[in-house]
Amino acid sequence: MFVSDCLNINANGHLTIGNVDTMELAKQYGTPVYVIDEQAVRNNCKAFVSSMKENYGENGLVLYASKAFCCKEMCRICNEEGMGLDVVSGGELYTAISAGFPTEKICFHGNNKTVQELTMAVENGVGRIVVDNIEELGRLDSICKEKNLKANILLRIKPGVEAHTHEFIRTGQIDSKFGFAIETGEALDAVKKAIATENINITGLHCHIGSQIFDIDPFVFAAKVMLDFMALVKKETGTELKELNLGGGFGIKYLSTENPPAFFDYMNTVAGKVKEYAKELGLNSPFIFIEPGRSIVGAAGITLYTVGSVKEIPNIRTYVAIDGGMFDNPRYILYQSKYEIMCANKANEPKDMCVTVAGKCCESGDLIGEHTMIQQVEPGDILAVLSTGAYNFSMASNYNRNGRPPVVMVNNGESRIIVKGDSYEDLVRNDI
Amino acid sequence: MFVSDCLNINANGHLTIGNVDTMELAKQYGTPVYVIDEQAVRNNCKAFVSSMKENYGENGLVLYASKAFCCKEMCRICNEEGMGLDVVSGGELYTAISAGFPTEKICFHGNNKTVQELTMAVENGVGRIVVDNIEELGRLDSICKEKNLKANILLRIKPGVEAHTHEFIRTGQIDSKFGFAIETGEALDAVKKAIATENINITGLHCHIGSQIFDIDPFVFAAKVMLDFMALVKKETGTELKELNLGGGFGIKYLSTENPPAFFDYMNTVAGKVKEYAKELGLNSPFIFIEPGRSIVGAAGITLYTVGSVKEIPNIRTYVAIDGGMFDNPRYILYQSKYEIMCANKANEPKDMCVTVAGKCCESGDLIGEHTMIQQVEPGDILAVLSTGAYNFSMASNYNRNGRPPVVMVNNGESRIIVKGDSYEDLVRNDI
Repeated sequence: MFVSDCLNINANGHLTIGNVDTMELAKQYGTPVYVIDEQAVRNNCKAFVSSMKENYGENGLVLYASKAFCCKEMCRICNEEGMGLDVVSGGELYTAISAGFPTEKICFHGNNKTVQELTMAVENGVGRIVVDNIEELGRLDSICKEKNLKANILLRIKPGVEAHTHEFIRTGQIDSKFGFAIETGEALDAVKKAIATENINITGLHCHIGSQIFDIDPFVFAAKVMLDFMALVKKETGTELKELNLGGGFGIKYLSTENPPAFFDYMNTVAGKVKEYAKELGLNSPFIFIEPGRSIVGAAGITLYTVGSVKEIPNIRTYVAIDGGMFDNPRYILYQSKYEIMCANKANEPKDMCVTVAGKCCESGDLIGEHTMIQQVEPGDILAVLSTGAYNFSMASNYNRNGRPPVVMVNNGESRIIVKGDSYEDLVRNDI
Repeated sequence: MFVSDCLNINANGHLTIGNVDTMELAKQYGTPVYVIDEQAVRNNCKAFVSSMKENYGENGLVLYASKAFCCKEMCRICNEEGMGLDVVSGGELYTAISAGFPTEKICFHGNNKTVQELTMAVENGVGRIVVDNIEELGRLDSICKEKNLKANILLRIKPGVEAHTHEFIRTGQIDSKFGFAIETGEALDAVKKAIATENINITGLHCHIGSQIFDIDPFVFAAKVMLDFMALVKKETGTELKELNLGGGFGIKYLSTENPPAFFDYMNTVAGKVKEYAKELGLNSPFIFIEPGRSIVGAAGITLYTVGSVKEIPNIRTYVAIDGGMFDNPRYILYQSKYEIMCANKANEPKDMCVTVAGKCCESGDLIGEHTMIQQVEPGDILAVLSTGAYNFSMASNYNRNGRPPVVMVNNGESRIIVKGDSYEDLVRNDI
């Protein structure tokens, strides 16, 4: 019925998450509030980790892509679940270090890491730095030389595959700000250069083909492209690269009508194909990394809001104004992303009211959903927007000097704050 | 030549702002960094304030729409320049109060103010609360009753005019989340209800017709609609409303080819028409408010970035990667807003390189400009993006856990930080 198993309806007709009544959460923590179910997050971690183990043995590592939702507690949970971490900035790395995350299990991504960020990664022994471009390779080499340290790197490769939801295209020489293209020869040149760079140890390659992908085929296709390239590298340089990072992009359920493949099926198919292709190409099966982010936290989270007004514009639409908006969830104004929305205190009632959910920012485009069916609502009701665990908190702003809401974690009837909301003090903290 | 008079080129061929070399700013404060010229801001304030005085005497007040760029120092400057303030959240109000801004000169907007925000406004003697809907009117009345205080309010009216840049439309019954429609009778009902509400003193009306408007006509048209409605109110209720807030939306130069009207011309035309229409309708000339935001700070600000890599994709495009991106300027990914971009250390050289400026966030859409002509750039160069004073800092996020850059104010050769950048400590401050 729901987009996630962690959601339910209790005897009072209230939506629950992790067996906690959302009315209690709204009362205790105020609204707006992000709520994430710990058990759902851990179950997703376990599903990826065990799928990797069953299908690929000890020869792989699942990295949580922390850009989806990064805070200290998430880092702790991922560590406890035996995952590595994918970070994309000094801030995410700092968070991981602050949470005591083992840095050797961290992979540092980004198309333009600063010297300060690269230095921080080297000094803290980050496991893999994914080098995006030739300038970065030189920069990293200089830093390593100065520090008398050697960095393990992957090179970011453009596999010429781009996938979104149900479609994928073979773009050949992909138009992207990320990585090295295979077709032009720059990827091979970069590998040769990395091999020859003194303070750099190239362990493998990385690719990423898109986001919110619902099919397994594009991943299989990308794996084939990458293994073909690894065979070429071996032929041209004599070096067999040991590692292949296949990136992330696994789709999640935003709407209950959506059906992403099970993690196990993905892992089973991809792992099988990687082994098969490697064998065909005369390569050892590489150590593989995969990088789920959204699929770990997305459907495990919801956001609760209080309805402030219901404004019917006859023959046009009905605006339901909430006490959050684009500052806590910019995905609608950015991508017109669709969410399931419901009245949390009337969860058993029929969804027979067509509304536009409007945020409180002074901007007409500040909407969370348009022409969405929800229960009959009135001011004071609590709205729940589902599947907001990924890219909501992480993309939140203080637009209009609204404070970002707190993040509350629930677990089998209990709740606790894992990220405090911005206070007014926080909003002016850096003002002189 | 430039979008703003505060920009120039010095003998070293470097871009200057407020007579400060941008290379010195990049060196002293690091990049990315927002830079705002104080003199340009103050000149814009003075232009609005004096235009109001010359054309409408003491019978009006210019309010700075702080959502464009809100921090304590901006509030102080606006106060010194004799302006009032338009705030849209508890956070903006808190900022103003922290900066010692006189609250009686504050106008509190928003389509869904929370009870906490309304209470804060009432307790702090905010000059005008702009009531958006009937639920809010009731909420405010209850708060005032409890506090034994009376609130001065304006009602937000939909004038049925919607304007953007060079076009405006008469929409009749406008599809907007803001305010009361005239055509349906709800606006008149709301005025009657407000007049009858015990703890509320309705002083007038507010309207806002759009943003980045380059013509004066839509403002004149909106003023006519509002005055007609004020005449109707007088006829139907016997009450002559004393105040008319005409909102903001004055266009600025993002590109040097753009030519917004001078503030004086706007004020001269609109003030004249308001007096003329009022007289025709047998009304006294109302006290008027106008609310410039973007036009005060937009062109006074620039953002400086360091180029990390230049990636040419043959026959497709060249990506220039900078150390900022959608986290400090989300306007490109949100609205595909166009900016003038230049190489600050090669300001005298010809702009003969066509590039796409890419941010450092792990997202393909993280771009600041596409197919933009700039000087021949290489890694290490400093890029300046012009006209970023409005809605850049205010919409900034910590996406990818990147810290928001500091805001530096320059003034005739001097510079100082007015908002500190986020430190790593700041990024994890609220993490448990």
